[in-house]
Amino acid sequence: MSEYKTIKEACYRANMKLPELGLVVYTFGNVSCVDRENGAFAIKPSGVPYEDLSPEDMVIVDFENNILEGTMRPSSDTRTHAYLYKTWKDIGSIVHTHATYSVAWAQAQMDIPIFGTTHADHLTCDIPCAPPMKDEYIRGNYEHMTGKQIVDCFGEKGLSHTEVEMVLLGNHGPFAWGKNADKAVYNSKVLEELARMAYLTLQINPSAPRLKETLIQKHYNRKHGKDAYYGQ
Amino acid sequence: MSEYKTIKEACYRANMKLPELGLVVYTFGNVSCVDRENGAFAIKPSGVPYEDLSPEDMVIVDFENNILEGTMRPSSDTRTHAYLYKTWKDIGSIVHTHATYSVAWAQAQMDIPIFGTTHADHLTCDIPCAPPMKDEYIRGNYEHMTGKQIVDCFGEKGLSHTEVEMVLLGNHGPFAWGKNADKAVYNSKVLEELARMAYLTLQINPSAPRLKETLIQKHYNRKHGKDAYYGQ
Amino acid sequence: MSEYKTIKEACYRANMKLPELGLVVYTFGNVSCVDRENGAFAIKPSGVPYEDLSPEDMVIVDFENNILEGTMRPSSDTRTHAYLYKTWKDIGSIVHTHATYSVAWAQAQMDIPIFGTTHADHLTCDIPCAPPMKDEYIRGNYEHMTGKQIVDCFGEKGLSHTEVEMVLLGNHGPFAWGKNADKAVYNSKVLEELARMAYLTLQINPSAPRLKETLIQKHYNRKHGKDAYYGQ
Amino acid sequence: MSEYKTIKEACYRANMKLPELGLVVYTFGNVSCVDRENGAFAIKPSGVPYEDLSPEDMVIVDFENNILEGTMRPSSDTRTHAYLYKTWKDIGSIVHTHATYSVAWAQAQMDIPIFGTTHADHLTCDIPCAPPMKDEYIRGNYEHMTGKQIVDCFGEKGLSHTEVEMVLLGNHGPFAWGKNADKAVYNSKVLEELARMAYLTLQINPSAPRLKETLIQKHYNRKHGKDAYYGQ
Repeated sequence: MSEYKTIKEACYRANMKLPELGLVVYTFGNVSCVDRENGAFAIKPSGVPYEDLSPEDMVIVDFENNILEGTMRPSSDTRTHAYLYKTWKDIGSIVHTHATYSVAWAQAQMDIPIFGTTHADHLTCDIPCAPPMKDEYIRGNYEHMTGKQIVDCFGEKGLSHTEVEMVLLGNHGPFAWGKNADKAVYNSKVLEELARMAYLTLQINPSAPRLKETLIQKHYNRKHGKDAYYGQ
Repeated sequence: MSEYKTIKEACYRANMKLPELGLVVYTFGNVSCVDRENGAFAIKPSGVPYEDLSPEDMVIVDFENNILEGTMRPSSDTRTHAYLYKTWKDIGSIVHTHATYSVAWAQAQMDIPIFGTTHADHLTCDIPCAPPMKDEYIRGNYEHMTGKQIVDCFGEKGLSHTEVEMVLLGNHGPFAWGKNADKAVYNSKVLEELARMAYLTLQINPSAPRLKETLIQKHYNRKHGKDAYYGQ
Repeated sequence: MSEYKTIKEACYRANMKLPELGLVVYTFGNVSCVDRENGAFAIKPSGVPYEDLSPEDMVIVDFENNILEGTMRPSSDTRTHAYLYKTWKDIGSIVHTHATYSVAWAQAQMDIPIFGTTHADHLTCDIPCAPPMKDEYIRGNYEHMTGKQIVDCFGEKGLSHTEVEMVLLGNHGPFAWGKNADKAVYNSKVLEELARMAYLTLQINPSAPRLKETLIQKHYNRKHGKDAYYGQ
Repeated sequence: MSEYKTIKEACYRANMKLPELGLVVYTFGNVSCVDRENGAFAIKPSGVPYEDLSPEDMVIVDFENNILEGTMRPSSDTRTHAYLYKTWKDIGSIVHTHATYSVAWAQAQMDIPIFGTTHADHLTCDIPCAPPMKDEYIRGNYEHMTGKQIVDCFGEKGLSHTEVEMVLLGNHGPFAWGKNADKAVYNSKVLEELARMAYLTLQINPSAPRLKETLIQKHYNRKHGKDAYYGQ
């Protein structure tokens, strides 16, 4: 039996949640789950419809993009996942989708402004939109550089990837991550919902103000601060 | 057996209606039901997904925010519910959600204009949007002051909470209430639908006029006036 | 057994299609079916949720608004239905809803422009929006005058109710009709879809041109003209 | 047994996918599947609701629009399908719908701009919107000329129908095609999703830039180029 059974099953279940949550159609999107001890991750095979997937189909890849286990080709975005796992050593799962509202903001090349407490319950800044990549990056090791583009964006904006667990890649779409697959999928759905709320807010009031700092801190900290009192 | 069995079950059923009606995702939102005789209310536990809830999980809290029964922490918004029950002695249930269109208007910091008879079937004025709270309120007993913010908004606008059973809290989202849980959930759904209709109306015609007073009175009174002839 | 069994059942089935087609929530909306021989129609009882309805609950009313059969109060819009049946002697069923996009155009007080062949497959002109009623009409026999408002609008615009089987009532919402209940419900759904398409069209291109006359005539006539070749 | 059993069943299954994918209501839309050896295609009968269809109902028509098999009248758009099969000798299936966002762009008479990688995963140019037809074409052999209008649009824009497997017909709606029915239906759904993403993108940022050429080529070629590495 595969020593990667646990991450294969977690990866499979997380992938299957994407169509259920309305975040993907057809083969759009992919989830991976990492096994830090073994330095490898499970990821969806490329171009396979969700209804045809089984846990055994998940491909095991190491951080240098070598396939360790699996008969199918891994997601074409595998190198982006590998780059992020290698750089951010404390994340457990990554989700990439082409969810509609998230993609729309990515195509608009705009950060999603923090307009309300739903947003501040999850993060304290605008959701960053990394700029489209330089031509030499695109023509080179594209998916690898996609990971770098995300990490560089966090560096330039001074963001922490443990506080901000989501990003838009300009002209492409959303990536989200978390300590495990459930959290990464959750972040992916929350991002889509925040994208939709912000879109509607601007349609109703194009000069809607950003949420004020006291509310941002209050909502973020009651859920994530040292004296958090949200949840069990 | 708990003397609060009835409100626990009513509270549970009402909470379960929120995802069914498309008003919440994940753990967003909460419903409470009051027992006026015992001066206590049942409320959803904090941060528990709807699919994991059971009637026994509902937490019983008094109007001073003491937990009377229950093994879980109550909703982080409990103090807002307590404040409203204590102040408005004739309401039986409160619903708070992060429903998309309602939140969008709250984030836009705008009242929802009364544009049509669907709106006037339920209330005769714009749906009020309470302004975002003062910093000292936010930094203090936040959820308690959230209740006060809502009540103050009704006071300043001269609104009656028995005629207007819904409000937007600026930058946060909707609260609705009613004589019982069914009515409070109903108001929550109606608010979301009115928010959506008003949004679309302004997109089609940015200078759409408010509904005229005769139509407002006619529709409200045929359903709620002394000679009402709507319903059985 | 009731001599109105047939229209009661047709009326029940048609009412039940409204929530299924996403045209109503709660008790919004009502369908009636006429029995021309007996000069009476079956209509939904007022304020009863769709899931609680049974065929026996349908109320039988004549064109003077007398209840002939039924233990419940008929829809509060009954007099509008009666007026339309009395005036337009060849219609068999009427549907009134508060479907979202149709209501949005009604609240915008605008006709829905004929932008494409989907529209022309059903009618050759803009979907009329009757203006909001005069105050004396509203304060008087309101629902009766609502029927008159619709008929007057068709008179003023020179429209035929057998060619144009749908209307928006300004600030209120859509009415549709047809030779039978299936057709009336169909028209109601088509109206909502045309309302949504036209809304999106104007968002994409605020100066989108009306469909040209040759295409209007071609599409309408291939489906409804004397040489129609659409359908079986 | 019919020698067309295979295409009849493929055609039936593809037609049934349209309501499931949310691309049609009622009788809107139609799919055909070709049998190149016999020079004939199976197509949906005209005006029959999807829930009433069976594989036997599919009508067999040759490229000169002669009915070879079937008791029902074929889709009123049959001549458009015949024209396209006759002209483009390597396509296996055609789908026509009145899907909402695709129709909205067609009614706006605008090409759908290539804004992101979701688009570039499928084609490298804007999705063309063929102009509304000349009056003499409309008054003549309308559905035949509709096919010609599409082919002419590809000619004028220098597009390849094997690279661009979708088009909007101005004021009408979308057509998509592919080597087989699954691919044609897939293209139809992708077109609708791209139409929705582009609509939202322009609402958020009316001056959103087109996707840059390097990204277009990268995404298209990793999926369709000679060194493609997407899929299995």
